[in-house]
Amino acid sequence: MKDQTQMTAALTREDVTALILTAKKAGRLTWEGIAETIGMSPVFTHSACMGMNAFPSDKAQALVAALDLPAEAADLLSEPPTKIWSQAVPTDPCIYRLYEIVGVYGPTIKALIEEKFGTGIMSAIDFEMSLSREANPKGDRVKLEMSGKYLGYNAW
Amino acid sequence: MKDQTQMTAALTREDVTALILTAKKAGRLTWEGIAETIGMSPVFTHSACMGMNAFPSDKAQALVAALDLPAEAADLLSEPPTKIWSQAVPTDPCIYRLYEIVGVYGPTIKALIEEKFGTGIMSAIDFEMSLSREANPKGDRVKLEMSGKYLGYNAW
Amino acid sequence: MKDQTQMTAALTREDVTALILTAKKAGRLTWEGIAETIGMSPVFTHSACMGMNAFPSDKAQALVAALDLPAEAADLLSEPPTKIWSQAVPTDPCIYRLYEIVGVYGPTIKALIEEKFGTGIMSAIDFEMSLSREANPKGDRVKLEMSGKYLGYNAW
Amino acid sequence: MKDQTQMTAALTREDVTALILTAKKAGRLTWEGIAETIGMSPVFTHSACMGMNAFPSDKAQALVAALDLPAEAADLLSEPPTKIWSQAVPTDPCIYRLYEIVGVYGPTIKALIEEKFGTGIMSAIDFEMSLSREANPKGDRVKLEMSGKYLGYNAW
Amino acid sequence: MKDQTQMTAALTREDVTALILTAKKAGRLTWEGIAETIGMSPVFTHSACMGMNAFPSDKAQALVAALDLPAEAADLLSEPPTKIWSQAVPTDPCIYRLYEIVGVYGPTIKALIEEKFGTGIMSAIDFEMSLSREANPKGDRVKLEMSGKYLGYNAW
Amino acid sequence: MKDQTQMTAALTREDVTALILTAKKAGRLTWEGIAETIGMSPVFTHSACMGMNAFPSDKAQALVAALDLPAEAADLLSEPPTKIWSQAVPTDPCIYRLYEIVGVYGPTIKALIEEKFGTGIMSAIDFEMSLSREANPKGDRVKLEMSGKYLGYNAW
Amino acid sequence: MKDQTQMTAALTREDVTALILTAKKAGRLTWEGIAETIGMSPVFTHSACMGMNAFPSDKAQALVAALDLPAEAADLLSEPPTKIWSQAVPTDPCIYRLYEIVGVYGPTIKALIEEKFGTGIMSAIDFEMSLSREANPKGDRVKLEMSGKYLGYNAW
Amino acid sequence: MKDQTQMTAALTREDVTALILTAKKAGRLTWEGIAETIGMSPVFTHSACMGMNAFPSDKAQALVAALDLPAEAADLLSEPPTKIWSQAVPTDPCIYRLYEIVGVYGPTIKALIEEKFGTGIMSAIDFEMSLSREANPKGDRVKLEMSGKYLGYNAW
Amino acid sequence: MKDQTQMTAALTREDVTALILTAKKAGRLTWEGIAETIGMSPVFTHSACMGMNAFPSDKAQALVAALDLPAEAADLLSEPPTKIWSQAVPTDPCIYRLYEIVGVYGPTIKALIEEKFGTGIMSAIDFEMSLSREANPKGDRVKLEMSGKYLGYNAW
Amino acid sequence: MKDQTQMTAALTREDVTALILTAKKAGRLTWEGIAETIGMSPVFTHSACMGMNAFPSDKAQALVAALDLPAEAADLLSEPPTKIWSQAVPTDPCIYRLYEIVGVYGPTIKALIEEKFGTGIMSAIDFEMSLSREANPKGDRVKLEMSGKYLGYNAW
Repeated sequence: MKDQTQMTAALTREDVTALILTAKKAGRLTWEGIAETIGMSPVFTHSACMGMNAFPSDKAQALVAALDLPAEAADLLSEPPTKIWSQAVPTDPCIYRLYEIVGVYGPTIKALIEEKFGTGIMSAIDFEMSLSREANPKGDRVKLEMSGKYLGYNAW
Repeated sequence: MKDQTQMTAALTREDVTALILTAKKAGRLTWEGIAETIGMSPVFTHSACMGMNAFPSDKAQALVAALDLPAEAADLLSEPPTKIWSQAVPTDPCIYRLYEIVGVYGPTIKALIEEKFGTGIMSAIDFEMSLSREANPKGDRVKLEMSGKYLGYNAW
Repeated sequence: MKDQTQMTAALTREDVTALILTAKKAGRLTWEGIAETIGMSPVFTHSACMGMNAFPSDKAQALVAALDLPAEAADLLSEPPTKIWSQAVPTDPCIYRLYEIVGVYGPTIKALIEEKFGTGIMSAIDFEMSLSREANPKGDRVKLEMSGKYLGYNAW
Repeated sequence: MKDQTQMTAALTREDVTALILTAKKAGRLTWEGIAETIGMSPVFTHSACMGMNAFPSDKAQALVAALDLPAEAADLLSEPPTKIWSQAVPTDPCIYRLYEIVGVYGPTIKALIEEKFGTGIMSAIDFEMSLSREANPKGDRVKLEMSGKYLGYNAW
Repeated sequence: MKDQTQMTAALTREDVTALILTAKKAGRLTWEGIAETIGMSPVFTHSACMGMNAFPSDKAQALVAALDLPAEAADLLSEPPTKIWSQAVPTDPCIYRLYEIVGVYGPTIKALIEEKFGTGIMSAIDFEMSLSREANPKGDRVKLEMSGKYLGYNAW
Repeated sequence: MKDQTQMTAALTREDVTALILTAKKAGRLTWEGIAETIGMSPVFTHSACMGMNAFPSDKAQALVAALDLPAEAADLLSEPPTKIWSQAVPTDPCIYRLYEIVGVYGPTIKALIEEKFGTGIMSAIDFEMSLSREANPKGDRVKLEMSGKYLGYNAW
Repeated sequence: MKDQTQMTAALTREDVTALILTAKKAGRLTWEGIAETIGMSPVFTHSACMGMNAFPSDKAQALVAALDLPAEAADLLSEPPTKIWSQAVPTDPCIYRLYEIVGVYGPTIKALIEEKFGTGIMSAIDFEMSLSREANPKGDRVKLEMSGKYLGYNAW
Repeated sequence: MKDQTQMTAALTREDVTALILTAKKAGRLTWEGIAETIGMSPVFTHSACMGMNAFPSDKAQALVAALDLPAEAADLLSEPPTKIWSQAVPTDPCIYRLYEIVGVYGPTIKALIEEKFGTGIMSAIDFEMSLSREANPKGDRVKLEMSGKYLGYNAW
Repeated sequence: MKDQTQMTAALTREDVTALILTAKKAGRLTWEGIAETIGMSPVFTHSACMGMNAFPSDKAQALVAALDLPAEAADLLSEPPTKIWSQAVPTDPCIYRLYEIVGVYGPTIKALIEEKFGTGIMSAIDFEMSLSREANPKGDRVKLEMSGKYLGYNAW
Repeated sequence: MKDQTQMTAALTREDVTALILTAKKAGRLTWEGIAETIGMSPVFTHSACMGMNAFPSDKAQALVAALDLPAEAADLLSEPPTKIWSQAVPTDPCIYRLYEIVGVYGPTIKALIEEKFGTGIMSAIDFEMSLSREANPKGDRVKLEMSGKYLGYNAW
């Protein structure tokens, strides 16, 4: 059973996430800083570090170099993940508010997409997002910008 | 039981929504056009017409005038609604993609808010959103912009 | 309240579906025959008649003519529907077997798409499907063919 | 308690799956290649390697030989598995799209089976499936082909 | 809207079930008696009357004659039904006990089928069942007999 | 904490099940053979080995002797188990088909019990079941026979 | 469609429950008083009036006479009901407390039944219950007494 | 990290339950016997041993002495527990029957409490219960007696 | 069927709620004003008007007089209601925030009750609550005050 | 893999909670006492110790000093937590009663907030709460006081 022993000693995707968090803490780094180092956006960088996206090979290499991760981590960071997220509405207030927005405004977004484009959807695959801080005298604001390709339904 | 009879004949919030949809169809109007007429955003206008937000009094009056709705509709349009949306993940592909985005990127948004602001949330109450069409040679894109006030947790 | 009365008398999408079923029964038609008449596939034709897809305008007109539906049905048949289907696994044995196939082979399909294409998905929007009868001496077989555009994840 | 110790040291079906994945990675193999080596289809080969189907004895032996697995793996690979898959709709976008297709088109498939065959179902037991890449100038497409025996309901 | 009016006046499958129950009560009939009259089993007869199975055409005609139902009922009784039953465990004690039996003995039945036949299932489509009263000095017993065709999994 | 150490080393009911499976595999035994050896039915024997029923003391002793299990296993095999089974409908096709049968025919079984016996149920406690192979030229069939005492509701 | 009209005019079980409640209110009766009049217990009387149990024929007749119900109500009151109750834990505080008791003490009741009787259950079919008021200086108490036949599991 | 090591070695409430079960088995004790030794009821004794109630300090000491448990167990046995029980209806037939009783008779118990006491509930906090064996020629019966303080709703 | 007709014409609890809302709107009243008129708190008054609590008889009479409701409404307003509220977490943001508070602070409240009182609970039956507006230069605040009797668990 | 080893040896937030509980027990401290020592409220102190809130840095330092925790605990105690709490209604009676209150009075609180403030909510972020013991001759009472900033919905 030698193979099996080797296998359980192998690095998993969860290990890589943990190593990244440790390196970030030890180096007092920020997601924004890490993202800049490898030349990607903070949103994509964080989600791929968490295992919700796959890094392009060169970016995986760059991250391994930047954070001094084990060499085999690069391979794992560019494998297609299985994206698992709870379909139960999450309880953390910061994440819940996003569901509230989607729940309240979902039909509105659908109606306006149909008005501006036709019968179709905003792609969540050919998609990108950014988050920034908007100064405001009554209290600064979180700005979220999303952009997804319009896909029209096929009729055949 | 005279009062009860009158009561069931009274206009409900659902009736007002139906009357708006009928007027919009008959007049070949768009949400963008209606919104412009009353001086509000298309996102807010649509969601308040659907009964998910309350119009300010003057905007309710303006809408009643613009669409030739019964006078008593103005009152109903500015009453605080009970916002009810299915907590089950919706099946319509256009709305589902929004849940997919929030499911995949929720923890990322939380991490970046904490990095840029501290321990807190983006408000879904002091909040606004817009949707626009972004021309793109590889296929036009849907652009969604959200802005919510940052609220830091109280510690006492 | 004249408008409201007119409104409730108006044709709904459900009415159009019912009228189609009545006309199909009365005329002893088949889905395959109806589809051929309007020049579309049987799968798309049935699903759009059931309100799960929107007909292109000219096809909606052709259907209205073929089945002698009221003129205003054409408009309804080409409006974007909200696709609602039960997320609970359905109990009808014919439909359940499809879920069983997707449940058992879902991860296999994902692995083979990634092997042949890269990190991405088969689109359910730019998609088509056909169903045919395959003669077989041990008992005829149902043949289902699906084709969806490959969409690779964006990395930004 | 000697027996118990031996028992926990025994190879489980999950171990065999892990050993296959390790061998595949080490050998830079593909599912298509493995399938060809043992003379079965890629879909069946992957699903049986994952523990969702039982290999015929000779194919299990061939796989053990091809990937240099421990001898006792052959037995496990041909034992009837208990097929367990989440009845909650899965969140990975690649797999979710399959549920969307089945949810939207399930009643259509049922209606067309009944039109072409009578009252019955497409078997998910006497069943096979293949996946291929379809070249297309607007972007290559995933082609899924399924074939299941028609089974008519018994009336007694 | 003449068509729509006619449509809503048409007989539905639920109407036919109600008419059967009324005729059975008025005629002080039993399911066993009705089944004998039309030459089918009581189990199939009851379930098809309830809309969970489709009668063969001649049996539908026989039932219409026996119970003096409207002529158009025969058509409805032989249409393929959509079998809908609650996936929540039912609360009626008589039905719940059946779930308890399946829950407790399901894995046992699977193990014994595999021992006697191989990797496969008992069909619920090519299937029949009977129920009888078994005299017993300690209290009579309900006897349930089921018979379904064995279907072996395809490997390809 | 000496007692606790001893305790965790003690044999559990799950251990006994595992030891039985190991002995069965090693001895190339069948459930039918084991059942015959101890003079019980295969259905009860399998379910009690799996921990879903309690063996009578003498049968537990006989099983321990037949399979050469540790002496203390006999005690565990005759303790009343807590019968735990998933109330979610199971996904394995062989077990699922049983739920489909109970879902479709549950109300029919209830109606026929009431017709033949009165207001009451078939007991799942004073109950027995057998499974056999029925030869058939069109393909052999699985035969399931159940017998449960009729229990009439008390009225007081 | 004359039969159908008659059918919908017929008395249903729900109608009978409503008639009983109306008669009870009009006559300022109590459940205890009604139960005494027909010679049954208050618990059984209330539950059978609510449609959760079937009255013996003579008791149904007595109830019809006592409350001056339509003659055909007697038949309905003695038909076997389908007992439907929400499997979701109920929210009314008075009923919820009963679930809390069963949730907390269920395993205790099982352990004590096994200690006093052996492997088996307390029947919920051959069962009865009473409720009384127990005077107590610190505040009166509700006393609930249940009695169900012990049923030992069959081993075969 | 010395404290953490000590902490994980500390006795938990689950350990105490396990030690009690071991001592009970080793000493061939019964719950009734243990309860008598410490001067409490069998129902409360079992539930507090299982961690669903807190023993008064002196009773915890008595139990520790009677079963020769480690001294620190007394503290744990009198700490307020968090009562966790599955809100899903349990599958063990002995426990399920209790839910069936509460489901069927819950509204009846509520109606009779209101008739005898007014608007309020039977407390599940100021509550007690006993279980006994009732001899009966047709088969012995389980007798369950519950007593809870009536609490009337406050109106303010 | 004269009784049934009368019955359906009778006032229901839902009718009374609707009549109260109509009277409140017509009279431009507030809950605080109504509560003051009948000498009860606004919280109790609103919840009893909504059918979640029963008014004491004299208060029901006072409300009927104040709002000019039909005389028979008084009886309905003092009948014990069945308190039904969705166990699914509600989606309206105003109500959801209350669940968030209870979800986050529930274990804290339990720990502090046990520290200050012992093993027991805060009663939700002998309970009262008030809501007021607290002026604050940084924005006014909602103040919620709850008071419930401490109930210690019985040990017997 | 040296980093990974170090990582798994690092202190987690759960470890800190466990160390706090151990120190509290060893020192016979109360939450009220701990809260006073660090100059915060008992409610916030307990919830932040449990990992449901983040301590301000100086308070985290004070807690580390007061309870003699490892130095690195201070960092963990002031990191933003992910607040996870079960959306299933909890079963512990003390916590359940809080849900009952929110379930019954949620719509009332919403109505009164709207009456006193307008369309908006009570913030659960800019929020505080206290719990105290209220002496009362009929039995002492639990007093819960909550205060949250009113937030009005944005209209744009």
